[in-house]
Amino acid sequence: MRQAFHELRMATRGRGLYEFTDEVEAWVSKNGLRSGLVTLHLRHTSASLLIQENADPDVRRDLEAFFARLVRDGDPLFIHTAEGDDDMPAHVRAALTTVNLSIPVNQGRLTLGTWQGIYLWEHRKSPHSRTITIHFIGE
Amino acid sequence: MRQAFHELRMATRGRGLYEFTDEVEAWVSKNGLRSGLVTLHLRHTSASLLIQENADPDVRRDLEAFFARLVRDGDPLFIHTAEGDDDMPAHVRAALTTVNLSIPVNQGRLTLGTWQGIYLWEHRKSPHSRTITIHFIGE
Amino acid sequence: MRQAFHELRMATRGRGLYEFTDEVEAWVSKNGLRSGLVTLHLRHTSASLLIQENADPDVRRDLEAFFARLVRDGDPLFIHTAEGDDDMPAHVRAALTTVNLSIPVNQGRLTLGTWQGIYLWEHRKSPHSRTITIHFIGE
Repeated sequence: MRQAFHELRMATRGRGLYEFTDEVEAWVSKNGLRSGLVTLHLRHTSASLLIQENADPDVRRDLEAFFARLVRDGDPLFIHTAEGDDDMPAHVRAALTTVNLSIPVNQGRLTLGTWQGIYLWEHRKSPHSRTITIHFIGE
Repeated sequence: MRQAFHELRMATRGRGLYEFTDEVEAWVSKNGLRSGLVTLHLRHTSASLLIQENADPDVRRDLEAFFARLVRDGDPLFIHTAEGDDDMPAHVRAALTTVNLSIPVNQGRLTLGTWQGIYLWEHRKSPHSRTITIHFIGE
Repeated sequence: MRQAFHELRMATRGRGLYEFTDEVEAWVSKNGLRSGLVTLHLRHTSASLLIQENADPDVRRDLEAFFARLVRDGDPLFIHTAEGDDDMPAHVRAALTTVNLSIPVNQGRLTLGTWQGIYLWEHRKSPHSRTITIHFIGE
């Protein structure tokens, strides 16, 4: 039984979904991890981690459109506006989704479904640098 | 320290909450798992995993009613409608909930609260076959 | 490789966000846990666990205001009202967030971001006693 850690840095170009399934798969493969549990933890409060369909890009467009309507930028309800009208909406979107994912690894592969991809969801409108801690425990 | 894997298949009869706490408990018991961590990963993007009250069935009815109103089938906002008017709402519901659960096991039992049940939440209106990867690490 | 368990009890004073990052850090430190995975599981269906900003208290005020508007107490949609007009809204809020968190531990510290705190989000208006199972696996 062993563990492995990695810190993945991703540069975003502003609001939107950024897939990084390949980066996680490559790290699992490079480290020869055969079976166990991969945990991803995003170290920020205005972005999310999400597992969603990676086939039709319209799904990402529609997810973004739905969340933009549900949590409106500049909503007068919000008083925390220090960093602009997308500041508090970014925190609310993060609360409605998650910053933790746990995915079993079997036979050297993440046990994702055929259409599942792993995404960083940037909720701020401006580009940001984001850090994700990746942890593995198993064999 | 050891690991165990299982692939659980569930046939749904369309939209709704399907409890499978007993199946997970039975698997933990059958494998003699005493203490550790159980992780459930649903391998789909239009259904969710949820821990919720398993006493009054009205809670499931109300959860479904709330989500149906929040994410309307046939909403003209959506352009990804390839599989019907419940296609994109199913992806949004999955994003608003989760496809991963991690539950500690102690003294041979899941550490669920008295009223907590584990559910597969089918978001599509038609019957589907769903697969959940179950992983255990511990003793 | 070893495991550790703890049952954390928290008394809430009604609806709101209660930070307990220090309690988790102190437990990790006291047990000499160096590297591994901490999993938190809340054993209730009308409260949540949340990782969010712990700097400006306005963020918590705005999160609460947004959720109160999104899931209205006394909404006539709900039929499960046995414990009052905040009963079913509490279940919906829990479904929209989560009751599970998994955070890697590295060099004896939780790998939280600079601004991340761990919160118990009480969704009921009256004070409650809540229990969180904490599990560690690693070294």
